[in-house]
Amino acid sequence: MTNSVVQVEKTLNPKMKPAFDQLSFGTVFTDHMFTMEYTEEQGWHDPKIVPYEPILLDPAAMVFHYGQTVFEGLKAYVTEDEEVLLFRPEENMKRLNRSNDRLCIPAFDEELALSGLRKLIQVDKDWIPNIEGTSLYIRPFIFATQPYLGVAPSKTYRFMIILSPVGAYYKEGINPVKIAVESEFVRAVTGGTGSAKTAGNYAGAMKAQEVAEAKGYSQVLWLDGKEHRYIEEVGAMNVFFKLNGEVVTPELNGSILEGITRKSVIELLQHWDIPITERKISMEELYEAYQSGKLEEAFGTGTAAVISPIGELYWNDKKITINNGEIGELAQRVYDTMTGIQTGRTEDPFGWRMTVDIDTAVAPSHN
Amino acid sequence: MTNSVVQVEKTLNPKMKPAFDQLSFGTVFTDHMFTMEYTEEQGWHDPKIVPYEPILLDPAAMVFHYGQTVFEGLKAYVTEDEEVLLFRPEENMKRLNRSNDRLCIPAFDEELALSGLRKLIQVDKDWIPNIEGTSLYIRPFIFATQPYLGVAPSKTYRFMIILSPVGAYYKEGINPVKIAVESEFVRAVTGGTGSAKTAGNYAGAMKAQEVAEAKGYSQVLWLDGKEHRYIEEVGAMNVFFKLNGEVVTPELNGSILEGITRKSVIELLQHWDIPITERKISMEELYEAYQSGKLEEAFGTGTAAVISPIGELYWNDKKITINNGEIGELAQRVYDTMTGIQTGRTEDPFGWRMTVDIDTAVAPSHN
Repeated sequence: MTNSVVQVEKTLNPKMKPAFDQLSFGTVFTDHMFTMEYTEEQGWHDPKIVPYEPILLDPAAMVFHYGQTVFEGLKAYVTEDEEVLLFRPEENMKRLNRSNDRLCIPAFDEELALSGLRKLIQVDKDWIPNIEGTSLYIRPFIFATQPYLGVAPSKTYRFMIILSPVGAYYKEGINPVKIAVESEFVRAVTGGTGSAKTAGNYAGAMKAQEVAEAKGYSQVLWLDGKEHRYIEEVGAMNVFFKLNGEVVTPELNGSILEGITRKSVIELLQHWDIPITERKISMEELYEAYQSGKLEEAFGTGTAAVISPIGELYWNDKKITINNGEIGELAQRVYDTMTGIQTGRTEDPFGWRMTVDIDTAVAPSHN
Repeated sequence: MTNSVVQVEKTLNPKMKPAFDQLSFGTVFTDHMFTMEYTEEQGWHDPKIVPYEPILLDPAAMVFHYGQTVFEGLKAYVTEDEEVLLFRPEENMKRLNRSNDRLCIPAFDEELALSGLRKLIQVDKDWIPNIEGTSLYIRPFIFATQPYLGVAPSKTYRFMIILSPVGAYYKEGINPVKIAVESEFVRAVTGGTGSAKTAGNYAGAMKAQEVAEAKGYSQVLWLDGKEHRYIEEVGAMNVFFKLNGEVVTPELNGSILEGITRKSVIELLQHWDIPITERKISMEELYEAYQSGKLEEAFGTGTAAVISPIGELYWNDKKITINNGEIGELAQRVYDTMTGIQTGRTEDPFGWRMTVDIDTAVAPSHN
């Protein structure tokens, strides 16, 4: 299917745009959205761009009851030359279909969805903020819509993409945060949904976050669900440690999200000839590395924050201070390079960027 | 708060009722629904009964993205004397608030919700089917509504109750089903959300169900997430085994749903002086019991099906036939007694029934 199958209906009532120097995260949405429907008879069909508007759903729609829903997050940036860049968007579409498979949601055509996304960005191009640290956050998501209370995969679904101009995820900049190692709650376990980007993983993680925040920590470090020993993720991010000059990150084991920022950071470190290993890392090992002075840096990786340095870990009544609570040299270098590539300020030797052609006039379709 | 705070707006367009002898499960809904809103400023407020109608939600509403949602299921029955009975509804409201706590959703007033439910049933009393095996299925549910893409508990929620006249959950009656012991997927693990009635648990379980169905099994028997050894649940039900005259069911360990039917069956067995123990049961133990001729019966318990006998288990290439694939004497007795109490056909020595006063005229409120 080609771009031309995506119909466009432009809004007659454009909204006021927010001041781009005062953006927060995920509260303001653009004028349009992409939608596509799934039925057993027609498969995925009727891809279109329409004015951003509320969704009308039967109270029995299965998303409210049995939670079949998957999502993605990525960002568009505008360069100084007014080019619009996406960062590895094909990876997001691939992962969304992998999440679909785990949640028994039918696969969609990734080329078509990317084409719909590009057209949506063309239509709402004036919403892409152009101030340092800002971007257009893109949220593709799919959810079950059949009105039915039996426990079974839904027979109908909706795919949507909404856009939100956002400021930096952490208003204070990328200052190192304090993290509590989670001792009670578990995010995911092998055989569960941990590697899928689905709502239930996030809903289940909120309680631990709430408890940690009440104790003065920003996020939790998740341990594995079987032995409560091996490190999995930090908050809603993947996690990296620099131990004695070598970088390590938990290996993909089926319960960890396959982060696109994670993958890109690994490729970047390899490009720099910095040793990077994906393997199991226990809290005991990390604590021993700390005690022997080998724990040099720790940071989370994710689309929203890109890089989030960890300044302190709290584990079993023990406080682990990392790099004097300051951002490490490697975290800073990775952050600068990743955001440089994403925003077009630096070279992209990997071919990670996709340019969105915003000069193409998007004529409303009359159908 | 009293019943009188629940406002009522009756529909001007009553729907056609379905033929009560041709009902399926969870596809038809009554004329009205109960709704209540939560905001930080007002707490839970504006409880009311309104015509059944679609929900209007912002595409950024958090239920679509981070899945904070909890639900309950219970049934109303009409007796031969035209009394309307609920089965332990206060237990459902208690559990809904326990689920809320796990999902970081603010607690609601259980008395008020019960009062709203009774009033809703009064308004839609003509929708309660009166044919053997039928009932009015009641679905209370709560979901996050704030339009926000940050990962954090929502600041607004909606509580709804919808009603659906249903036939028997299994059309074929309570024939024993074939169950595959799940060897790959995991429903829940200690520290996760398994004991909460939340959408993510059901979404995550569908893949295993799909694989089992393709192999000719009705449901899966879930093992624990840590060792993949101990029995937890069957499909979306709790599970009981009769071993050499003694009944055993997996103990509540934080990853098993605290079923109200489960609890009631335990109390019923105690009342009958049949030995019943809540403890860990490994598949090895069950297989040994089978080999030595001690595995006499197995059945699932849940609101939708009440009792669902297991005729065959498939585990590690081994087939375990139970009671010649026929419904056991105990399962039949429990089923007859439970449904007898629920429908008013037999005595209720436990005080489990709550009568809904349907003679009270419900005047529409004008506010």
